[in-house]
Amino acid sequence: VFLVSDFGDGDEFAGVMRAVVTRDAPGVPVVDLTHQIPPFDVRAGALALERAVPHLGPGVVVAVVDPGVGTGRRAVAVAVDCASGPRFLVGPDNGIFTFVLEILGRPEAAVALPSARWRPEAGDTFDGRDVFAPAAARLWAGASLAEIGSPFAPEDLVTLPRPHLETTQGSVVTEVLWVDRFGNVQLSARPIDIAQAGLGAQLEVVAGGTTFTVRSATSFEIGGDIGLIPDSNARLSFVCRRRSAAAVLEVQAGDLVALRDPADPHNRREAVGRDNHDEAEPGVES
Amino acid sequence: VFLVSDFGDGDEFAGVMRAVVTRDAPGVPVVDLTHQIPPFDVRAGALALERAVPHLGPGVVVAVVDPGVGTGRRAVAVAVDCASGPRFLVGPDNGIFTFVLEILGRPEAAVALPSARWRPEAGDTFDGRDVFAPAAARLWAGASLAEIGSPFAPEDLVTLPRPHLETTQGSVVTEVLWVDRFGNVQLSARPIDIAQAGLGAQLEVVAGGTTFTVRSATSFEIGGDIGLIPDSNARLSFVCRRRSAAAVLEVQAGDLVALRDPADPHNRREAVGRDNHDEAEPGVES
Amino acid sequence: VFLVSDFGDGDEFAGVMRAVVTRDAPGVPVVDLTHQIPPFDVRAGALALERAVPHLGPGVVVAVVDPGVGTGRRAVAVAVDCASGPRFLVGPDNGIFTFVLEILGRPEAAVALPSARWRPEAGDTFDGRDVFAPAAARLWAGASLAEIGSPFAPEDLVTLPRPHLETTQGSVVTEVLWVDRFGNVQLSARPIDIAQAGLGAQLEVVAGGTTFTVRSATSFEIGGDIGLIPDSNARLSFVCRRRSAAAVLEVQAGDLVALRDPADPHNRREAVGRDNHDEAEPGVES
Repeated sequence: VFLVSDFGDGDEFAGVMRAVVTRDAPGVPVVDLTHQIPPFDVRAGALALERAVPHLGPGVVVAVVDPGVGTGRRAVAVAVDCASGPRFLVGPDNGIFTFVLEILGRPEAAVALPSARWRPEAGDTFDGRDVFAPAAARLWAGASLAEIGSPFAPEDLVTLPRPHLETTQGSVVTEVLWVDRFGNVQLSARPIDIAQAGLGAQLEVVAGGTTFTVRSATSFEIGGDIGLIPDSNARLSFVCRRRSAAAVLEVQAGDLVALRDPADPHNRREAVGRDNHDEAEPGVES
Repeated sequence: VFLVSDFGDGDEFAGVMRAVVTRDAPGVPVVDLTHQIPPFDVRAGALALERAVPHLGPGVVVAVVDPGVGTGRRAVAVAVDCASGPRFLVGPDNGIFTFVLEILGRPEAAVALPSARWRPEAGDTFDGRDVFAPAAARLWAGASLAEIGSPFAPEDLVTLPRPHLETTQGSVVTEVLWVDRFGNVQLSARPIDIAQAGLGAQLEVVAGGTTFTVRSATSFEIGGDIGLIPDSNARLSFVCRRRSAAAVLEVQAGDLVALRDPADPHNRREAVGRDNHDEAEPGVES
Repeated sequence: VFLVSDFGDGDEFAGVMRAVVTRDAPGVPVVDLTHQIPPFDVRAGALALERAVPHLGPGVVVAVVDPGVGTGRRAVAVAVDCASGPRFLVGPDNGIFTFVLEILGRPEAAVALPSARWRPEAGDTFDGRDVFAPAAARLWAGASLAEIGSPFAPEDLVTLPRPHLETTQGSVVTEVLWVDRFGNVQLSARPIDIAQAGLGAQLEVVAGGTTFTVRSATSFEIGGDIGLIPDSNARLSFVCRRRSAAAVLEVQAGDLVALRDPADPHNRREAVGRDNHDEAEPGVES
């Protein structure tokens, strides 16, 4: 059973989930992927799962980034049919499995999990403990989806919008997906995207109205400049040598940046703003 | 074996405890409940255990919040007789098991553990590694209490004072037990306490001299106000929607707050101060 | 399999390593020693391993503090012949096993691990996932070193310089190795070093040009002063009662401090500067 949440490690939330899984399915190996998803950030959780899931063996993934707990939002368990890797996904129906399901393939089946609470007088604000962990333990122990919930059409699962990515000749406008502990800046763009845009080893990046020069690289040992590397998830990442590229570029997850050819005069007047996922596309400064 | 400590995750303290348990009892499942109890805060550790222990299966709980390590304070192992849940508690005799024992019931037996150190020239400042983890491993592997320590009367265990709670008609004065990662504010009061005080769905809370209006709720999706929910531990908690109720109310663990009826003019002149567990009861401002 | 890294817990890096080990060696117990080594701080990782390794049972230690990942630096697996404790060490060849090998003894054999990446178009910047975790899983499952890499002479392993320690009659100049969560300040000096310098229970410490009085102690309950205790690793540590000795002394890892006899007038004019491991020995202020 693999666990992802925004519970942090400061409280016993994650620990109690571990304990409940172990109590209900003795002998189960519990693997914490991370509990440090930023609070309430379903999208960050969905992206962390996308990065992690290709490396997981068979099992049950439980993801709890769940600001809607205790409301009418659906609690779900989903079965997937993949050659290796997880067989079941368990969590709130808020889109957290959107990107994982693009990797693992269309769900075979989905069920809504009944609500549960520790005691009648307790609240139902800890579904990780009361609903998701017990469901994962039962699935790991051999229960079928039908035994633990009410079927519904997998097409009805909530989905998140795809990350922004816009490739034209000489330019890639791409979204910052993630800034890691080291300040590396992962983009929605992949190496093939800059190739398709006709961009070379020397590029300009426009971030927040400022233009930087970046160079293609393959490791973090890149001298004083900003490097653009194919990262371990096969996306592009900005990196600096032993310091934070995010701090140098002043970007954070959700921002848009533009990659372009420094020799192209056509690009001289563009700039790219911040994407907060609620507003219209960023405009072009004049 | 379940672990709770104030070691944090920044050092290898908790990891070495895990390793020692695994070394001495191969095959044992080790479940970290949390290692982020605030440093030296025995009471916070005792409350985290109280919240966690109803959800644990059989096993041994090791709790190391132990500012007195290396002094004459007693190291203990305690056996409890409960239908399910932990069979043994291991840790310093500083009251950390006070609230857990109210749940699990009177101890069957208690022993003082002999001191131990890694090497003669090493200090005895890491009993988690040198005393508690090995004792837990032996108990898990089948040793009896008598084999690992010297019996003493369980009544002699150190206990902590109960959390403050004072219920009168129209008013509940209650202690903040815990502020979690999300800023939710757990109180010593339970839903039955506000019912017994005759309070309704609309309440006033006096915190630090300031009066706030709160409304009963059942989830975190409560609009812009402060909600009072029955939480997952069957206590009352103040919550805000996607922000910290603790920051809004400016409270922290150990503070006292008053819940009262906004329609009652009798309450108009009260206020409640901060309880640091060392001073007298907070007075009434005039 | 024991894991140490500078990945932190904020991202899924450590979790994915756990998952890969579990995927490739089902049933393996994975013990996280710590993932909070300061980023890129190979020396801190090497010291954490030195502290932890005497307490580990048989197994494979994986250490990933690896600023050179993706460059030509060698990835290695090393076999040691020790009565108990780890049999294999896996990680980058950057000196991280220097101090552990002084404890475990001369390696029996060493191999360079072939590079690997998730997909052709991905970078090789996550050897923890792609190289080290799979190698550890294979070793744990019974593979020999020869099966997983190319032999080289263990003498060619990169080593770190030993911590600074200079003992003369009446004075010990010693390096701060580590400041833990509680602010305890571990020194390179051991109890025998102050004995050999002829120092007694009352000492002076010179840190950053300021002189403090310290007293020998055996626990953290030492009143208002700074204590010097034999710590749980059999080194000396400065401690304060429930506050940070590092903050009081204004020291951090890598600093040099001098311990000396307060009664010795010869010592009156010395002071000790900061050692950054790159500069010459600190001079004597006049």
